[in-house]
Amino acid sequence: MNNFDYYSPTRFIFGPDRENEVGSLCRDLAASKVLIHYGGGSVVRSGLLERVEASLSEAGIAHLALGGAVPNPRDELVYQGIELCRRENVDFVLGIGGGSAVDSAKAIAIGACYDGDFWDFYSNQAKPERRLGLGTIVTLPASGTEGSNSSVITRTADWLKRGLRSDLNRPDFSILNPDLTASLPAWQIACGAADILSHVFERYFTNTPGVLLTDNLCEGVIATVIETAPRLLADAPSRDDQSNLIWSSTLAHIGLLGNGRQEDWSVHALEHELSALYDVAHGAGLAALYPAWMQYTLPHDPARFARLAVRGLGVAPKRAPDLELAREGIRRLAAFYRQLALPVNLRELGVDEADLPRLAAKVKRNPDGSCGFFLPLQDKDILAIYQLAMNWQPEML
Amino acid sequence: MNNFDYYSPTRFIFGPDRENEVGSLCRDLAASKVLIHYGGGSVVRSGLLERVEASLSEAGIAHLALGGAVPNPRDELVYQGIELCRRENVDFVLGIGGGSAVDSAKAIAIGACYDGDFWDFYSNQAKPERRLGLGTIVTLPASGTEGSNSSVITRTADWLKRGLRSDLNRPDFSILNPDLTASLPAWQIACGAADILSHVFERYFTNTPGVLLTDNLCEGVIATVIETAPRLLADAPSRDDQSNLIWSSTLAHIGLLGNGRQEDWSVHALEHELSALYDVAHGAGLAALYPAWMQYTLPHDPARFARLAVRGLGVAPKRAPDLELAREGIRRLAAFYRQLALPVNLRELGVDEADLPRLAAKVKRNPDGSCGFFLPLQDKDILAIYQLAMNWQPEML
Repeated sequence: MNNFDYYSPTRFIFGPDRENEVGSLCRDLAASKVLIHYGGGSVVRSGLLERVEASLSEAGIAHLALGGAVPNPRDELVYQGIELCRRENVDFVLGIGGGSAVDSAKAIAIGACYDGDFWDFYSNQAKPERRLGLGTIVTLPASGTEGSNSSVITRTADWLKRGLRSDLNRPDFSILNPDLTASLPAWQIACGAADILSHVFERYFTNTPGVLLTDNLCEGVIATVIETAPRLLADAPSRDDQSNLIWSSTLAHIGLLGNGRQEDWSVHALEHELSALYDVAHGAGLAALYPAWMQYTLPHDPARFARLAVRGLGVAPKRAPDLELAREGIRRLAAFYRQLALPVNLRELGVDEADLPRLAAKVKRNPDGSCGFFLPLQDKDILAIYQLAMNWQPEML
Repeated sequence: MNNFDYYSPTRFIFGPDRENEVGSLCRDLAASKVLIHYGGGSVVRSGLLERVEASLSEAGIAHLALGGAVPNPRDELVYQGIELCRRENVDFVLGIGGGSAVDSAKAIAIGACYDGDFWDFYSNQAKPERRLGLGTIVTLPASGTEGSNSSVITRTADWLKRGLRSDLNRPDFSILNPDLTASLPAWQIACGAADILSHVFERYFTNTPGVLLTDNLCEGVIATVIETAPRLLADAPSRDDQSNLIWSSTLAHIGLLGNGRQEDWSVHALEHELSALYDVAHGAGLAALYPAWMQYTLPHDPARFARLAVRGLGVAPKRAPDLELAREGIRRLAAFYRQLALPVNLRELGVDEADLPRLAAKVKRNPDGSCGFFLPLQDKDILAIYQLAMNWQPEML
């Protein structure tokens, strides 16, 4: 196990109707005014925005709202939000919705306390030191941004998508109401489940020895997602399944599962280029890459894949070579994606094979030119994984 | 899953030698002076106290030390510490050692900010609102107090042992150096392992439905302890095993494993009376009670016990009735205790059978007269469990 620091100061408020406590939560945190920041109309249509405004008003807290955050949230709206915070003397930003609205809210809360251009933080030219108060109400089990130290913003001038990792990105509080996920379209549940799994996989695939505890915890979250997500799509969703999935989403990306381990993050790097070029959903892009990535990296550590198969992916334990269990695990994962109507290869995602070399060339590399850390991918590996993913089928294992 | 709030703002600093960072950690937190609070001589003999003092001095932070915390830490020393903090203008308390020194440090940090008697908080007559800064350096994988919201103090006037649960009990930072556990006697490792397991069991045994995620996480921590603790005693301990055990200790009691579940805590209530009357180690008392408690409560929910057996206790999965798997699990747990040279019944612990009615009468009850929540124990149940525990043997299952 490696050394680590772990710091997650967010207060999580979990349960049905708990968004109605937002007023009393903000009472100690917002001395002047709250900016409610959200995305599309569902927050309005569902009545959530109205309930939040009522709770704040009832607590005597002034507030204003800024909507319009889009998937892959953009710098323009962040600038608008920062400007608004300054003009209106806002001291607390409340992000409501999925990962996009919350990531945008994080950037506003940090940018409003900085004299320079907030993009300095996302381009690694400055480190943030302060932010406004920050809270979230999350309606989508996916990004885990409600507890994570990260946020991602896209600069539209050159469509550069960049992330910022900082303890300041951890909200003061996050409200999780499983009922708010009840009206989500099946596609969003599916993409969210793939996103949650990926946040665990990126931490699970490591060469760090002696990480039994976090291995066990990772497998516990994976098994939860594998069990609950299909039920949420199959029949009348149960509140317990919704609860387990949304709390899995938070824990998958809160940092806990990566403590003491070198993390990988190569599949996220490969996926970034897909969603940049084709505007596909992040979760769908991940599902279209993972089976091929796993098949390609399997020889590097069959025992780890076999362990994942049995302890995370529901493969029945038996006396069998690691490679056999591992392959069964990858097939099981692909079947899970299919059950959720997610793609399991790039063709199903709508990728043009001719684009692969260009995609491969753009993938973000480590300083030494490789990508990821489990099996550090070289140029040829990246292209080979894209090519394998193009027409991947379970029979190819 | 039930509603819950989860708040764990402690910064965890994990790894060999990291106690040398205590000076820089305190720089932002201690404006005036640090009180180092510890227990016995091992902190002095090992050189830990000296290293901590050197790190603080190097950071230019004034400090003084108060030793003497004993197992089941006492109110007298807390009063001394509070008095010292006031006289010396201390604004940060650093607890070093095992659970006793840290619990005592927690009480001092809270009591020093209160005009009345700190015991008011432990006797439920007041709620704390502030504390001094609080940090810990933990040398024993057991109590989990380094991340928990609780502390326990004994009033020597009437030997009343009382706990306080409050977010203020969560430290600002906790340093965990697995190497500091290398010199622990086997008995302390054993009792610590039993304590860690008990913190998970008290949360695991619940009637709350739909808690799949936390079930999985509980089982992951249990499996880690079951695997690592015997290895730590059997041969030259590995740093990875030490790391996994001490981090299990923190996570077992940080609150994470109880989120959304009704917790039980009946075995802790039964054990409290044992250690009060016989001055036995808490972990040994727990080990002497759990097999009997499990046998007694097994009929209440055989499926849960069967699940624990396979997923936490290392029983090979097979097609078998729940009761059979469950019994194998309890036998497996008892074998684990034995392997660590812990008692598995009250006779081995040194309890006199004639004391059982007196013990049973003293056990702390819920307001409705029962004890615990998984199977709410009535008077007759409590006595029956003590009696079953008296001569418990695996063959009795």
